[in-house]
Amino acid sequence: MRKTIATVSVSGTLTEKLEAIAAAGFDGVEIFENDLLVCPLPPEEIRARAADLGLGIDLYQPFRDFEAVPADLLERNLRRAEHKFRLMERLGAGLLLVCSNVSPDAIGDDELAAGQLRLLAERAAEHGIRIAYEALAWGRHVNEYLHAWRLVHLADHPNLGTCLDSFHILSRGSDPIGIEAVPGEKIFFLQLADAPRLAMDVLQWSRHHRCFPGQGNFDVAGLVRHALNAGYAGPLSLEVFNDVFRQAAAERTALDGMRSLIALEQDLAGVAHPAVPTGFAFAELADTGPLGGVLTALGFARTGRHPTKPVELWEQGGARLLLNSTGADPALIAIGLDSPDPGAAAKHAETLLSPVLPRERAVEEAKLEAVAAPDGTEIFFCDASWLGDFNPAGPVEEPDEGPGEGRSEGPITGIDHVALTQPWHYFGEAELFYRSVLGLRPQESVELPDPYGLLRSRAMSSVHGSGTGDGVRMVLNLARVGAADVPWQHVAVACRDIVTVARRLRRDHPELLLPIPGNYYDDLEARQDVDPELRSLGILYDRDDHGEFLHLYTVTVGRVFFELVQRIGGYQGYGAVNAPIRLAVQHAGDD
Amino acid sequence: MRKTIATVSVSGTLTEKLEAIAAAGFDGVEIFENDLLVCPLPPEEIRARAADLGLGIDLYQPFRDFEAVPADLLERNLRRAEHKFRLMERLGAGLLLVCSNVSPDAIGDDELAAGQLRLLAERAAEHGIRIAYEALAWGRHVNEYLHAWRLVHLADHPNLGTCLDSFHILSRGSDPIGIEAVPGEKIFFLQLADAPRLAMDVLQWSRHHRCFPGQGNFDVAGLVRHALNAGYAGPLSLEVFNDVFRQAAAERTALDGMRSLIALEQDLAGVAHPAVPTGFAFAELADTGPLGGVLTALGFARTGRHPTKPVELWEQGGARLLLNSTGADPALIAIGLDSPDPGAAAKHAETLLSPVLPRERAVEEAKLEAVAAPDGTEIFFCDASWLGDFNPAGPVEEPDEGPGEGRSEGPITGIDHVALTQPWHYFGEAELFYRSVLGLRPQESVELPDPYGLLRSRAMSSVHGSGTGDGVRMVLNLARVGAADVPWQHVAVACRDIVTVARRLRRDHPELLLPIPGNYYDDLEARQDVDPELRSLGILYDRDDHGEFLHLYTVTVGRVFFELVQRIGGYQGYGAVNAPIRLAVQHAGDD
Repeated sequence: MRKTIATVSVSGTLTEKLEAIAAAGFDGVEIFENDLLVCPLPPEEIRARAADLGLGIDLYQPFRDFEAVPADLLERNLRRAEHKFRLMERLGAGLLLVCSNVSPDAIGDDELAAGQLRLLAERAAEHGIRIAYEALAWGRHVNEYLHAWRLVHLADHPNLGTCLDSFHILSRGSDPIGIEAVPGEKIFFLQLADAPRLAMDVLQWSRHHRCFPGQGNFDVAGLVRHALNAGYAGPLSLEVFNDVFRQAAAERTALDGMRSLIALEQDLAGVAHPAVPTGFAFAELADTGPLGGVLTALGFARTGRHPTKPVELWEQGGARLLLNSTGADPALIAIGLDSPDPGAAAKHAETLLSPVLPRERAVEEAKLEAVAAPDGTEIFFCDASWLGDFNPAGPVEEPDEGPGEGRSEGPITGIDHVALTQPWHYFGEAELFYRSVLGLRPQESVELPDPYGLLRSRAMSSVHGSGTGDGVRMVLNLARVGAADVPWQHVAVACRDIVTVARRLRRDHPELLLPIPGNYYDDLEARQDVDPELRSLGILYDRDDHGEFLHLYTVTVGRVFFELVQRIGGYQGYGAVNAPIRLAVQHAGDD
Repeated sequence: MRKTIATVSVSGTLTEKLEAIAAAGFDGVEIFENDLLVCPLPPEEIRARAADLGLGIDLYQPFRDFEAVPADLLERNLRRAEHKFRLMERLGAGLLLVCSNVSPDAIGDDELAAGQLRLLAERAAEHGIRIAYEALAWGRHVNEYLHAWRLVHLADHPNLGTCLDSFHILSRGSDPIGIEAVPGEKIFFLQLADAPRLAMDVLQWSRHHRCFPGQGNFDVAGLVRHALNAGYAGPLSLEVFNDVFRQAAAERTALDGMRSLIALEQDLAGVAHPAVPTGFAFAELADTGPLGGVLTALGFARTGRHPTKPVELWEQGGARLLLNSTGADPALIAIGLDSPDPGAAAKHAETLLSPVLPRERAVEEAKLEAVAAPDGTEIFFCDASWLGDFNPAGPVEEPDEGPGEGRSEGPITGIDHVALTQPWHYFGEAELFYRSVLGLRPQESVELPDPYGLLRSRAMSSVHGSGTGDGVRMVLNLARVGAADVPWQHVAVACRDIVTVARRLRRDHPELLLPIPGNYYDDLEARQDVDPELRSLGILYDRDDHGEFLHLYTVTVGRVFFELVQRIGGYQGYGAVNAPIRLAVQHAGDD
């Protein structure tokens, strides 16, 4: 389907917007009036610029407060419209969006409204222009899409149709199934926006918090399906008012918009996601030296070396970590995902415009497909063959573990989740990436206090139930703090018996454990019957309706720390309630 | 009155919070539980730290979801309470805030609720602790302050009273006059917060958008007056949850909170503001050279020189500008205000904790009282004598004006307003400063699109009607753009006849005029019957219910530009509707 986007959805001057939109592969644009008014180029030059970029001008918008007015005001409104028609001729735009009147002057009279819309359509027809009439969610008398359609039907003019906007329909909780009652050829335009569920005035919600389909809570694809069932054959057009997009780089926002439409089309086509990850193959950490000691203390053993790269494989149970000593400070740089079909997964990522990473490799090495996530983390799609890339490790120090445990055996059983901190302008891009490219399901965002700001956190998962090994869990964090971004990332490993691990760590490496305030345990013990040993071991506790959660943190090395977690019963969370404790202690460590 | 503040209101670790709060001069604190839980110090040390700083611990808060529950839950809740009582003994806190139950387990039964509150009070009494019960605006059954009081009255225990919170009362639109029905000695605590009027879920509103009294739209002083009339004699306590305060420097936030309480007390005492400015004496601009040419082009003449400082006086009509060539790039550095009593104004500013600036001056110079505004701009309180500081200027170039006009005469008649850009963490501080220190009345905030973000703009004024000379107008801007702050400031001068001034500028100095896109005029002419000459002169147009507004902008020099404005009739605005045009053209000039 043809894909377009309103210029208001991205930042910059009109010229910059058009260039970014064309570069992202859109077929056309809606010119948002304010973007034109502030542009120094005359309409003819804007038209030429768009044409040079291969962009059609599919819509000019919005024309406000036209219909259902007293006769004298109608005259003035028609004069306004004539000006706009002449402008649109210069611009080469054939479709004008008229949104329902919000003025106190508007009269609640459908006959009057329809008659005036018909008059407008007649005038438009003289210029070869068509009118798409839309119900704003906060329109004075017309605020339901079926009401707008009733007026269009009543006016009955070939140059008058309706415009449907997913935000205006879904924000009011209207059932979009009614779209199927509208003849497809009378749906002149379809504007798409998603939004997080927010309990606020719909006008403010619309103007500041819209986002691209797949980034919010609305079923935008379901709405589009109704439009297609009705016979709609026009473009899918993004129209997003978002405070963050206004401040972000236009190129990235436009590309992300295109990704959202491609994902939506795949969804509509009923394409099953080709490669939802079934587990973590590995997490790769840049290291200048200190991480080996931490891993040893946690009971990991070095079990392999890459023959050509400065990369070591460390293992314990099903948890595999790579230490990459190419010189960067400790940070999480790559994630390997167990993929049922790595080739299909990479190809799918490529259809969704993810940057595919070139892999330097020796002939005999396993081919690893990889893409870059929005924050630059490399995502590898792996089958079992990747382990063959590693030679058995040479002589290593004995791992610090009890007798009788095998080299890669131990209380740690696998990677439970990884948590990545996102740059704040691109949190929505990350949500869409993990959802569409990896097929993870987002959970609700939570906001957590940090001593110097707030942390927004959203878990994404492909896990059914609470086990490991049948999917992956990731946590996206967004730190909004005064001084600077909080860059911490972490790898959480699952334990069979966290108390035993913690006892050993407390005995042999107390310096690696993040100290937890006694006040936390005083409060915990007031709320719960918990083992008093949790306090002495620095283990945190949470519970939900499904089970219990025990976890502890190591100190931070570079940007990275480790979390040890034990899920008991069907606990489904991530211990978010305890994150403020961790953040405060980590900040105290900044001093 | 005793002044306290909840630790949640400022950023940092608990220790940093206490230090900032003590430095601002508060008498005590409410310890917010989460701040204690994340603190590594045991309660005894927190108590000692507070005592060392001269702070009492007036309240511990909050204790949640206690009352009106089934018997088994009551037992657990009493166990929780006993833990908290022991903690409070260690902390040396004698008053516990209990907020109304929000849990679905709560039962809507006043007798049950009161009985359980009485039980809690009995237990508390054994520890010498008192309970302040508060209605949360979103409490499940108890959400009105008079309902909370009814339960306290019914429970009838000396250790049980009520806590009033201005946010919870005023956000619901409840009439605070009912406070006078509560015996003063049963009001155990009074929490104060203001808030901007926002149409959103009250819980989100409360958790993210509270602010200090005087920064929002609530009549907090009116509510306090009712509490005083009731006989309340406890502290005035600030309790503010604010996303920006969480990220700002604790010292500044605490000081600003103290300023808000002092201003509130002055308000309660019925103190008339001693020195509302009656006009602009001058605006002072740092200059490295280029501004003299701009002022000459605008028809200003250099009429004076300071005998000892590198400062020139430039005049036209009642508009006086100082150019200060001490080396800084062009920027607005000071504002002189005509003050009926400069000494009283400075003293008033000092009572409100404004930093009074030391003035180096020669013996014969007028004494100028000055304070620093939150963004560092110097604010001078002037009587007519300041002009005597300047010697008549030496030989100057003839100002570029028509024959027959006197040196300091011309079409410009005075300063209409000045606009300052605020650092985003301290916009609320600026609002409170201009309101309390200068006695200006705030107008509603507006949000305006910028090509790379949004501009928040709030006008503050002491003008009655639309004239100049009987007050001052200021505009505070807050730029939230992606790349960097927009640092632009401007001085708007009032013209008798802007068209004549613009014609001359267009003829002689077209390079100084900000070019306005033709598309703007196409749209303007569609909406209004306006003189077609506006287009050729680059004059922008607005109207409101009271009159019309013509204005134009110069290009920016350093951080500064000039606006020429003509108010026709009783126009009361600032042409905000045209600001997006200006911002886009200014950004285009960045290239």
